Order: sequence, then C-alpha cells, then structure tokens
Amino acid sequence: MPAHTRGGSPVRSDIARATPSTVHVHGLDLVDMLGTVSLGDFAYLELFRRLPDKSESVLFNAIVVALVEHGLTPSALTARLTALGAPESLQGAVAAGLLGLGNTFVGTIEGAARICQTYIPADAGRLDDRGIQALAERIADDFASDGQPIPGLGHPVHKPVDPRAQKLFAITREQGFDDTPIRLMEELSRISSERRGWLLPVNVTGAIGAISTVLGLPWDVARGLGVMARAIGLVGHLLEERQQPLAASVWTRAERESSEQ
Amino acid sequence: MPAHTRGGSPVRSDIARATPSTVHVHGLDLVDMLGTVSLGDFAYLELFRRLPDKSESVLFNAIVVALVEHGLTPSALTARLTALGAPESLQGAVAAGLLGLGNTFVGTIEGAARICQTYIPADAGRLDDRGIQALAERIADDFASDGQPIPGLGHPVHKPVDPRAQKLFAITREQGFDDTPIRLMEELSRISSERRGWLLPVNVTGAIGAISTVLGLPWDVARGLGVMARAIGLVGHLLEERQQPLAASVWTRAERESSEQ
Amino acid sequence: MPAHTRGGSPVRSDIARATPSTVHVHGLDLVDMLGTVSLGDFAYLELFRRLPDKSESVLFNAIVVALVEHGLTPSALTARLTALGAPESLQGAVAAGLLGLGNTFVGTIEGAARICQTYIPADAGRLDDRGIQALAERIADDFASDGQPIPGLGHPVHKPVDPRAQKLFAITREQGFDDTPIRLMEELSRISSERRGWLLPVNVTGAIGAISTVLGLPWDVARGLGVMARAIGLVGHLLEERQQPLAASVWTRAERESSEQ
Amino acid sequence: MPAHTRGGSPVRSDIARATPSTVHVHGLDLVDMLGTVSLGDFAYLELFRRLPDKSESVLFNAIVVALVEHGLTPSALTARLTALGAPESLQGAVAAGLLGLGNTFVGTIEGAARICQTYIPADAGRLDDRGIQALAERIADDFASDGQPIPGLGHPVHKPVDPRAQKLFAITREQGFDDTPIRLMEELSRISSERRGWLLPVNVTGAIGAISTVLGLPWDVARGLGVMARAIGLVGHLLEERQQPLAASVWTRAERESSEQ
Repeated sequence: MPAHTRGGSPVRSDIARATPSTVHVHGLDLVDMLGTVSLGDFAYLELFRRLPDKSESVLFNAIVVALVEHGLTPSALTARLTALGAPESLQGAVAAGLLGLGNTFVGTIEGAARICQTYIPADAGRLDDRGIQALAERIADDFASDGQPIPGLGHPVHKPVDPRAQKLFAITREQGFDDTPIRLMEELSRISSERRGWLLPVNVTGAIGAISTVLGLPWDVARGLGVMARAIGLVGHLLEERQQPLAASVWTRAERESSEQ
Repeated sequence: MPAHTRGGSPVRSDIARATPSTVHVHGLDLVDMLGTVSLGDFAYLELFRRLPDKSESVLFNAIVVALVEHGLTPSALTARLTALGAPESLQGAVAAGLLGLGNTFVGTIEGAARICQTYIPADAGRLDDRGIQALAERIADDFASDGQPIPGLGHPVHKPVDPRAQKLFAITREQGFDDTPIRLMEELSRISSERRGWLLPVNVTGAIGAISTVLGLPWDVARGLGVMARAIGLVGHLLEERQQPLAASVWTRAERESSEQ
Repeated sequence: MPAHTRGGSPVRSDIARATPSTVHVHGLDLVDMLGTVSLGDFAYLELFRRLPDKSESVLFNAIVVALVEHGLTPSALTARLTALGAPESLQGAVAAGLLGLGNTFVGTIEGAARICQTYIPADAGRLDDRGIQALAERIADDFASDGQPIPGLGHPVHKPVDPRAQKLFAITREQGFDDTPIRLMEELSRISSERRGWLLPVNVTGAIGAISTVLGLPWDVARGLGVMARAIGLVGHLLEERQQPLAASVWTRAERESSEQ
Repeated sequence: MPAHTRGGSPVRSDIARATPSTVHVHGLDLVDMLGTVSLGDFAYLELFRRLPDKSESVLFNAIVVALVEHGLTPSALTARLTALGAPESLQGAVAAGLLGLGNTFVGTIEGAARICQTYIPADAGRLDDRGIQALAERIADDFASDGQPIPGLGHPVHKPVDPRAQKLFAITREQGFDDTPIRLMEELSRISSERRGWLLPVNVTGAIGAISTVLGLPWDVARGLGVMARAIGLVGHLLEERQQPLAASVWTRAERESSEQ
C-alpha cells in the first residue's frame, strides 16, 4: 500500500473476535458469560475492558439505572411523535429520542465529570475538607467570571435535595470508594446556594458526573452512560405508546393552539 | 375542552411519577432500587412493568447480553464514521448506528418471534414432538410458497451451530421454562437444512426470537431488545474509536478504490 | 482480489469525480453549474442523472416545493424538542425530524406511486376514460378486500379538494405530460368517496405519488422527495425556534397534564 | 392558565397557516407559488421569511448547490451502510448520513461565518484593503494564540485553489454584493499560507461561510445550509446504492482487515 497522509493506519478493532465455534469480547468468552454476567456488568466490560468487581458492579449498575427513566421528557415525547409518523421503524423512534440527549440535559453529566477531572489533581489522593473548600471556591469563581452556571446543580422538582443523588452518594461511600469528587460537588452546591440565595442541590446528573470520576470514566464519554441507559427507557415509552398513545394528542394540542393565534 | 376527532384522548404516561422527595417507576420506588436492582432487571421492569423473578432475570439478561456486541458490523462502522464528522455529538453517533438495526439484521429477532407467536396456538401448552414437527412443516411450506427465507436461520461464520444460540437454549431449559418455541426453531432448522442441502443452524437472533416468546414479549417490540443492547455496544465502539481510530481509514480506502475506477 | 461470497463487488460510485481543478457530478462540470443551475434542478440531476428540460423542471420543482412546509407537524415538533435538549447539534435536530417521515405521513407518496406503477401497464400509453375506470374499480376492490385504505386520499382540513393537489395536477397538464396516473387517482377519489359516503379528495401526497409516476421516479424512492424537501422546512422551523421557542411549552404542558392524572 | 416558570409562553409558529381552501407560508400563498417558485427560492423563503430578488436567488442557489454532492464522504458511506441494515427506512438512512455533518466537515461553514460576523464591524460598510489586512492579521494572531486552525482554509485535493470557492466568489461579485467577507477570507488564506509555508486556499465551506455573511444568514444556523443540501445528495447516493451497491463491500473489507490482525 502506498504511503498517504490520511487514513493510513490499519483498520483494527480489538473489542470482539469470532471463530466458527467461539466469540470473545475483550478477551472473555461470550458464551461463558451468557447466564452468568448481567447486562450492567457487561456494559461495564464494554467501557472498561474488564468485568467489574462486586463494589464496582453495585455502583455502576446504580448510576446507569438512575438514568434509564426520567418520565415524559422531551426525549420521550420525541420518540413517541416519531413512532406516530414511522411506526415501521422502532429503531428510528429510539434514535430520534436519543438525539435530544445533548448539552442541555444529559450533557451536564459530562460537565460535572469534567470539573472533577480537571480541577482535582490526578495524584491528590483523598483531599481533606480545607482542600475541597479551596478547590470549590476556585471553581465557583471561575464559572462566575465566565458567567456560566455550574453543571449538575439545581432541580425544578427535587428540593431541598435530589433523593437519587443522595442515594448514589451513600452507595459510593458504603462500597468503600474515595468520595473526593462527591465532596467537591457537595461543597459546590453549598457555595452556589449561598452565593445565589436559593437552593441548588447536587442533582442526579451532577452526582453521576462525580461518580464517573470515582469509577475512572473519562469525562468526554460520560455522556455515553446517559445514552445507553435512556435507550432502554425509550423502548419502554414506545411500548406504552402502542398501548396507551399520547403523541397524537400532544401534536393536536400544539397545532390547535398555534392555529388559534 | 371541545370535542374533536383527532388527539382527543388525555396525555397520560404511567411509567414514572415524581414528587419533590421521590421517584416511582412502574409503581416501585426508584431510590430503593438504586444499589439493589441491576441494569438488566431494570430493563425488564421497563418492558414488563414488574421486576423479574430469578429465572426470568437470568434468561433476560442472557439474551440482551448476547445482543450487545457483534464486532465491526455496519452499525458499528456507521457510529464511528459519524463520530469522525461530528465528534461533538456522541448521542448522534450512537443514534446513527442504531438506525441500521432494521429488517436485515436485528429485524430477524422480530421475524422469528412472529413465527413463534403466530403459529403456536396461544393455549397449546407444551407441544409434543409430533406437534412441533407438523407445525414446522407447515411454516416451511408457507415460507417456501412465498419464496421467503425463514428468519433466524443460518450464519456466515458460526457453523455447524451458533454457540450463542446453543447456550441460550440451554439456559432456557435449565431455568425451567417451557421450551416449545425453541424446539420449533430447532425443527425449522432441521427441515430447512434438509430441504436446502446445506446447514442452516438457528442463529443468535433466531434464538432470541424464540426466547422472547418464552418470556412473553410481543413480537412487534422484540426488535427493541436489539436496540437497547446495541446502544451499549456502540458506546464501547466510540470509546475505542477515540483511542484507536479506524473510521478515517475505512473512508479513505473506499474513496480511493472508487476514484481509481 | 480473492473470490469471496459477500462484499466481493468493487467499491464504486459514479455520482461525483474530483480532480485538483474540477468536480463533475453525473458527468457535468459542477463549477459550470454554479450560478446557472438551481437547487431544484440539481436535485433532479441527483435523482435522474441528467438535468431536467423546462417542463420537467417546472413540475419537479413544484412537487418538491409542495412538500417543504406542512406547519407544526409531529416532525417539526420533534426537531424543535430535540434542539431543546441538544442545541449544539442542528444536524441532530433535523435528523430527528426526518425520522418521523415514515409510513403514516410521507409514506403515502410511496403508496400512491406504487399503485400507479403497479396497476398501469408499462406500455399502455394514455388510457381512455373507460380504461381508467376499470383500473380504478379493480384497485378499489383489491384494497377493500385487504381492508386497507387507499393511500393518498382524504385530508382532515382540505375539503372538498386539496388545493395543492389541484394545482399540481393543473401544472402537469399545462406542461404537456401524459396525465394517466392523475386521472387514475382522481377516479379512485371519486369511487372511494362514493363507496364510503364521505369526501376523500386526492391529497397532496397522493398527487405527488401520481406525478412521481409521470416523471418516471420509481415508487420505492418516492419517499425521498419528502425527505429532501422536509429537511429544508425543518431548518426553517429550527430557525424560528431560536427566535420564538415553543418546544419548552409543548413539553411542560404534556408533562403537567400527565402528572395531574 | 396558571402562571408558571417554565414553558409558560404560548405555542405559536408563524411559518404556515392553513384553511380548508388555502395554505400560506410566511404570508405567501403556497398554491400561487407552485409552478412559479423554484425549490432553492422556496428554501430562501424558509430562511429569510421573504422570497429572494434575482441576485439573491442566483447566489443562494449557487451556494446550496455547491453543498449537495461531495462524493463518497463518511456521510454518504453512513447512509449506504444504514440502508444495508434497514432497507425499509429511507428516512433513517438519510438521517444517519446527516448526523455526520458536524464540527469536522460542514461545521467549518459555521466557523468561517462566525469569523466574518464577529470580526467585521456590523456598521463598517465596505472595508478597504488596509482595513481587511489589519483585520486578517488580528484574526490569524487570535487563532494562533489559541492553537486553532482557521476554519474554511485548506483542501486535500483542490490546490492551489478550490475551483468551487473561486466560482462562488466570482458570482458574488458579478451579482453586485459587497465582497468584504470574501476579501477577508482571501486575505486569511494569503496570511495563513505564508505563515505555515504551504498552500491554504479558501475551500468551498470557507467560501460559503463568507457568503452566508454577505446574504445576512446568522452564523449559528449556517450549518443548516449544508444539512438541507446534503439531504438531497444522500437521496441520490441511496438511489445509486440500490442499483450499484457498495456498502456490503465496505463492510466486508473492514471486518476482514480487522479480523486478520
């Protein structure tokens, strides 16, 4: 093959290998894993290239479960409206729903994870309270000077605390993980609430951003947790839509309201 | 609200309910489930509106795990090529990959499930071998007269048997489920191989179509199993693409080959 | 290259050719076409591999223009709801909107074109009124025996006629095309209205299905006309959404109505 | 309706209005426009809420035509690979292809338009050569200090100039528009080529970014030009794929190369 400047590297994926009698995924025999490895642990294998230990399994399953179902979100409405027009393509309706998992909603996982992974020194070990406080002040100042809200704080319904975030933090500690990123998000919540004058609890995506850091997931793929989880939830919404449709009503009401003006 | 002909039904989803201090999913407290319910069992809850028992959990997790990762499929290539153009949108790359899960590949789950759910009488109970054989002959005749191949049979690599299908069938039986749909697919494989003169083993999607029937999942949402599972696998491919890219090479080789002609 | 059973054909696309100083599309110099060929005529080139003559240009532009904008459809709502969640990805919002252009709405173009291209004999020439009537009776009987409605007939708002369909038919005739497919759709409208007892005018997608046949576009890509046209309209909706947002209201009302029950 | 903090604004779209006998788009009678307004001019109406004059029409059609077809791009490969898996959903294959029109490729239109609209003072009128030169030096310095390449410059194939960019610039001038943004991009090309030591011509997306500014299209929707244009091109690729398939070969070669390693 001649030298060239673009695309010269080999086409190579090391995720799966198949022979007539076997399939391996990240070096493990898939057939052996069927019946013994759960979906959540297999998802961990896809992300970390090894199976989780018991504590990692509990924590990872918890954060992904927390992302599956958030009710009648714009994403769920989108999947249902798409199925109204293209009932032949369940994959299209799920894909449409996933496309709304961007910067506004699920992207805050990424934002919170990025804060934790950028500001906490990689070799810091467990920071003490004064270290956390100093770091949080600096982050709050940085975001204030950019005029940006801190991602992962605040919730329209869940106040004074987001019960899911609380539970995920408790699990992290029970399972014996270093809770530095969690304490940082909690301190950011305290400072931000004080500065703004209203309650800004760590919400579920903020919590998951912190826990992604605990688990070692790079912030720039943390959004993938939301995408994989919500794909499950959207199939659930499409199943309900077949039995108890609401998309046609949402459409009719929007169209009628618009045309009456 | 005035009477109207379209969209008059209420907008109502019963999947999730949130109050300031709680979230319920299908009537169960989400916070209680965090840390105790695995991702696979929660996916079962989304589809069946209740948590699985132990046997259902083992079997359901096994079939979804079997669908997560199929290597460098058109779907995986699509996700990677999309990330090359739009690295800012991981959700877009996953969505693009899911859009290829249509009639050709994952749709065969649906096809096999449809055969099982259409031909096996709903109140039949466990069919004996003669019943299965008669049914399979009828199905094979019906498909032959339509000139259609039977979905869920045959595999380009896995011969003489698809080891994943074999394992999933073994799990179904070990867990004590009625194996009528499995025996029907096995008999269809035997008849088709004989009629065609080459081996047409039950493949993994054919197996999962049969097991969807065992679990009571309607055939017209069975494709959703593939969609939710593959969303996980596609995130894994996008993670590898960031570290060991191949999309640019696939593109360059295709473009060069085309332009040399 | 060694023989193999799958994917052995060369990778070859004949649409575009580029050299350092030129680009050709379907054999025509792109640079020469810039400033002289309109977008609609270039779209015709993509579909028919040659530029349209004057009459073809008028008719083709008319049918695609008629598909661009249909107001606050499920597809437009979907694009807007997606932009609410992922404002960073305009391409994702358009893609989500397009995914709803399936069997229910735009797919009726395909259905009407399929009727015309299946039932009208390829070498029939212009059918006389008795030929049209006999064909329409047969089609109506075939659909009635399948319990299916005839695609392309009926409209919730536009009665007794769809003014867009009327105009498209008038243009076809003014431009001197054989109007056999149009007369077939009109006769199907007459028969169906009579049999059902209410008005079922040829609607705009039914008209475009007939005119696709007039222009020689195969029915199984006729859906593509709607997809390319609506991509334009969706960009318009996303532009309006930035200036005069409505997606958040649609979401809030749906969520509130659901949670009040 | 009670006051509320989110979604309280009315649901209102002013793009289209329909009555039983008419449809208006941006205040113009759609039926009157069928047969007289071309697809490109109608696209202009969607973006600018009025029809273009003759010069605007020539220029707008030219830039959109230039974006329709770029050969066997990652986006075209994606659409074709998606159709391989889901032949039932043409809309899904087009949507998948559009999802790759992100920051890497079509996003450079946005980048170039943003430079023009950010750096050229809104009330500057036509800048003289010294003004252009000073502005270009400042931009080049700003991008250099951020370590970023200037979007819209350079092309792997088209050297020393991109013939499409040249032609679009000529049309802009022939049609009598203020060419300040064009001269800015040309000066940026000159400075960048000099500083880098190799040729960095204004490419077609850089040209279109400049011309978007000439036409008054806000940079943050300039990406929409590429999305609407490419939707047309992707339908063309899907039509060719049905007649002369290449996706299966692309897939097979990638999979084989990967599995041989």
